[in-house]
Amino acid sequence: MITPQSYKWFFEPTTNVEGHMHAIKRTVVEAQTKFQHMEIIETPAYGKVLILDGRIQSSQAEDFIYHEALVHPGMLASERAPESGLVIGGGEGATLREILRYPTIKRAVMVDIDGEVVELCKKYLPEMHQGAFDDPRSETRHEDARGYLERTSERFDFITIDLVEPLEEGPACLLFTREFYTLVRDRLTPGGAMTLQAGMTKLGELDFFTSIHRTLREVFPVVAPYQTFISCFGTPWGFITATKKVDPRKQDAAAIDRLIAERMKSPLGYWDGQTHQHAFNVPKHIRAATEAQTRVVTDAHPLIVT
Amino acid sequence: MITPQSYKWFFEPTTNVEGHMHAIKRTVVEAQTKFQHMEIIETPAYGKVLILDGRIQSSQAEDFIYHEALVHPGMLASERAPESGLVIGGGEGATLREILRYPTIKRAVMVDIDGEVVELCKKYLPEMHQGAFDDPRSETRHEDARGYLERTSERFDFITIDLVEPLEEGPACLLFTREFYTLVRDRLTPGGAMTLQAGMTKLGELDFFTSIHRTLREVFPVVAPYQTFISCFGTPWGFITATKKVDPRKQDAAAIDRLIAERMKSPLGYWDGQTHQHAFNVPKHIRAATEAQTRVVTDAHPLIVT
Amino acid sequence: MITPQSYKWFFEPTTNVEGHMHAIKRTVVEAQTKFQHMEIIETPAYGKVLILDGRIQSSQAEDFIYHEALVHPGMLASERAPESGLVIGGGEGATLREILRYPTIKRAVMVDIDGEVVELCKKYLPEMHQGAFDDPRSETRHEDARGYLERTSERFDFITIDLVEPLEEGPACLLFTREFYTLVRDRLTPGGAMTLQAGMTKLGELDFFTSIHRTLREVFPVVAPYQTFISCFGTPWGFITATKKVDPRKQDAAAIDRLIAERMKSPLGYWDGQTHQHAFNVPKHIRAATEAQTRVVTDAHPLIVT
Amino acid sequence: MITPQSYKWFFEPTTNVEGHMHAIKRTVVEAQTKFQHMEIIETPAYGKVLILDGRIQSSQAEDFIYHEALVHPGMLASERAPESGLVIGGGEGATLREILRYPTIKRAVMVDIDGEVVELCKKYLPEMHQGAFDDPRSETRHEDARGYLERTSERFDFITIDLVEPLEEGPACLLFTREFYTLVRDRLTPGGAMTLQAGMTKLGELDFFTSIHRTLREVFPVVAPYQTFISCFGTPWGFITATKKVDPRKQDAAAIDRLIAERMKSPLGYWDGQTHQHAFNVPKHIRAATEAQTRVVTDAHPLIVT
Repeated sequence: MITPQSYKWFFEPTTNVEGHMHAIKRTVVEAQTKFQHMEIIETPAYGKVLILDGRIQSSQAEDFIYHEALVHPGMLASERAPESGLVIGGGEGATLREILRYPTIKRAVMVDIDGEVVELCKKYLPEMHQGAFDDPRSETRHEDARGYLERTSERFDFITIDLVEPLEEGPACLLFTREFYTLVRDRLTPGGAMTLQAGMTKLGELDFFTSIHRTLREVFPVVAPYQTFISCFGTPWGFITATKKVDPRKQDAAAIDRLIAERMKSPLGYWDGQTHQHAFNVPKHIRAATEAQTRVVTDAHPLIVT
Repeated sequence: MITPQSYKWFFEPTTNVEGHMHAIKRTVVEAQTKFQHMEIIETPAYGKVLILDGRIQSSQAEDFIYHEALVHPGMLASERAPESGLVIGGGEGATLREILRYPTIKRAVMVDIDGEVVELCKKYLPEMHQGAFDDPRSETRHEDARGYLERTSERFDFITIDLVEPLEEGPACLLFTREFYTLVRDRLTPGGAMTLQAGMTKLGELDFFTSIHRTLREVFPVVAPYQTFISCFGTPWGFITATKKVDPRKQDAAAIDRLIAERMKSPLGYWDGQTHQHAFNVPKHIRAATEAQTRVVTDAHPLIVT
Repeated sequence: MITPQSYKWFFEPTTNVEGHMHAIKRTVVEAQTKFQHMEIIETPAYGKVLILDGRIQSSQAEDFIYHEALVHPGMLASERAPESGLVIGGGEGATLREILRYPTIKRAVMVDIDGEVVELCKKYLPEMHQGAFDDPRSETRHEDARGYLERTSERFDFITIDLVEPLEEGPACLLFTREFYTLVRDRLTPGGAMTLQAGMTKLGELDFFTSIHRTLREVFPVVAPYQTFISCFGTPWGFITATKKVDPRKQDAAAIDRLIAERMKSPLGYWDGQTHQHAFNVPKHIRAATEAQTRVVTDAHPLIVT
Repeated sequence: MITPQSYKWFFEPTTNVEGHMHAIKRTVVEAQTKFQHMEIIETPAYGKVLILDGRIQSSQAEDFIYHEALVHPGMLASERAPESGLVIGGGEGATLREILRYPTIKRAVMVDIDGEVVELCKKYLPEMHQGAFDDPRSETRHEDARGYLERTSERFDFITIDLVEPLEEGPACLLFTREFYTLVRDRLTPGGAMTLQAGMTKLGELDFFTSIHRTLREVFPVVAPYQTFISCFGTPWGFITATKKVDPRKQDAAAIDRLIAERMKSPLGYWDGQTHQHAFNVPKHIRAATEAQTRVVTDAHPLIVT
């Protein structure tokens, strides 16, 4: 018999000549917010999948891969056991959740401009936030992250930028520039670290990733690119850790395993010493592209994904 | 204006609920051989792409990634500078080409049952074989690889298995079993090494990879899984090196860079010491799946991909 | 900006080498009933669309085309102004609704085996049934139509068969046979007429349509095929009127317009004298295929759509 | 086994929320001419298919339907047995071929601006032109049809406009206007007739068809819309006959059958008296849309399909 898994499909063009597709089991919720189109679908392979403006952000099955990769390299590259964290973006709350797993964390702030997305994720993605929004150490703010950083005098041991791509007319255009990264750096404690998701690292599509990397090198003394494969994206994904002191590329497997044991008390599902080596030892051709990139992204010349 | 890049597409289902697709620029050649359906298309992103029975085997743009990953970990894990190599399968000749890059190689044999595919690749994929079939050190045979291994008394420093998936009625079903791997091991020199491509390592689809791994552990003292991302497959891909002596997981980055310099004289595009660390430091959840697998594939109970 | 209309699609293969697709605006409801998979989606072009086992049955925008074409040729070919009607199948209630538009109708029975589908249509497709189920003249039964016809002694002026395709293991296999049509004929009044939907009339795919037509000719003195284009199906669609007396091919445009005025008091959106000529003047190549068909479908050799 | 018929597909969006797709058996030829992108593919269901700028123009299997529908209603509405015909556009030569089937035809001119398309069709679509270009009565010209009509003083009994859609930057924009149709009318003999293809007649997409119809009513005393279903387009298709005298809607089935016998001597595959009734008895809702349309297309305000 024909089943619903064979006739409804979600298409995500990775470029205009390549795409990835998922059967749709059901649509959990769909909304047009003030800032973007938001949808949660359920797929047979990945469970619930969060989609913003037609782009998969995260999935239930790979939540642990994406969010561990986004958070722990920075938390473990903080010079001291981190006491405070800031999430810029981070809609579904899983980034916040990973920060709160550290017992030393006393305060975790999440600034996501789109309160409607956050509310819908609270309601429909409990598997992802797992109560993070209700943790007494967490604070959620719905405002422009740049304005927030300009006004606050607070300093954080860890900041992570988990934003949608800077689509034209999208909410994230001025959050990928040298000026913004300078602001982030200045809100870190002296031994602090930041991480961000930095776009796909698929062959032939490295410009976004390498431009972000080049831009961060204008601002931070240590900039360490790394890569993780997110199956539901259909492409490997780039991340970057930038710090004021610690270089994650110099943390060997044993050091990472020891830090996880000390700082977290319990093991992770994806990240450990060996995964750390996997991620930070970026393949040669990507290193070459990173070295060759000269573009610095600025407010005057922002990156726009079309 | 509507362009041809927007209306002709190649679909490759990675599972029955997920797929990857490429715009088709043109079809270079298409044939039904005695053993399989073969086609070469040109895509905007990857140039020429070889497709057997609907599955992408390799692409011009990622030739260097796939074939370097398939060949060099084994050539560098051979105890001595390799003097002989054997390719089982390897249709388009790029695997043979990579072996011939070692000046110490005196003899390289390729056994691919499908002579029609090899002839068409010779004609239409010169970018890939680059004359490897005409190298005086190389010999190409079109016969069943298992029969060949049973009859020959030759020993090789390096053997690689570069086969299509064992589709039902396909030509490769009995080339993924303990009995076959035992035959391969017995045709290696005492310090020899083998590699093989071992299927996707996408989340939730690890059974093929881990079963092959488990099976090899019945036969070889050293079995080292590794992983590489092939963009045009839309999924990360697993490989395995199995040796009688050297463990590639114990070769550090400097050792690999030194071996490449010594044995090859010139650098590679994808593989080096850091890429080696990237590949052999398999992410934690894949290691866990590998450890948990108990299935040993035998002639009596072969693996069939449906 | 990427919109939801560009990334979620419903695919309906018309054959295994051709298909039609619709953007999905939202999913209204989805259920697996005892008999089939049922879903209502909303599309930008057609509004709500009812899908059973992956096949579009009807859409809000083309409701008037499909259901007028299914009902009125038979109601107007009944020798007398029809007083009773029977719908076999007819899930969403629009067929019943069209029968009830005739003031002379005193009783309209609908027998659809799948009560769950009917209940969900009642709730989610009020635009289609428009209260037909609550009309005091209507009766809805959920049982096997063949058993019902065998047991009842009632006679109807009009019977229509609005069934899903006879998929293997589907609920409709024995409702497309000579034996079943004989039963239908025997439940008609002496001047009664029946209609049925008879599958696509796309070039090269006429076997279903012509076999049903040939089978009916074993049973009825008058068998008149006709054709309508349902845009959302992506193919023209075949219907057949079979009667004991009146031949709709001999009703000219003026006669049909007069009958509509007399029997219905108000005009229709799709059907009138000219549409009647359009539909019953089947193109030459389809007439030729109809004449050439020799297959009579029987209980012993039923039609199965695969 | 996976077959090539399951993995290469041609997609034709009928609108931006609906599409039709065909498996691709092979690509016969592909070229970018001075005016448009041209491709001939072979599909399992329809044989060779001609595609211009991503739009299916005609297929081998339905050649007889499309080209008989385009030519004969006009040839049979010419007051006298036609002695001369003009094809505007008509790339693959099948339109020309249908005109040449009339023994009374002494001269048939085809003006298609794109000589490269015509040459490739001559070579790769002999099934369609069947030697029409070599008929001593035919003349083929490659120039702008409007300029040709302005310069010539010749008169034709039949003119047909078989053009691609007026895509932006495409070659056909000023060939769908009142001014152009006036020129066409003035080049017809006093009893002459013209036909044209006038776009899809799918529900909700009638604007193109009805605007052309409305425009022609400014120019011709008789304007008769008709409709044919072309399966490979996935939508019904509109045509219009416009004449100075004869109204095809008043030609009954017997008259058409008699004219075919007299003027052609042999029967056609698609068109006959009954098909004529089918085609010219346009369904009610399309008639209503045609009546409601007020737009007259002019050089100053041309129709552009986007």
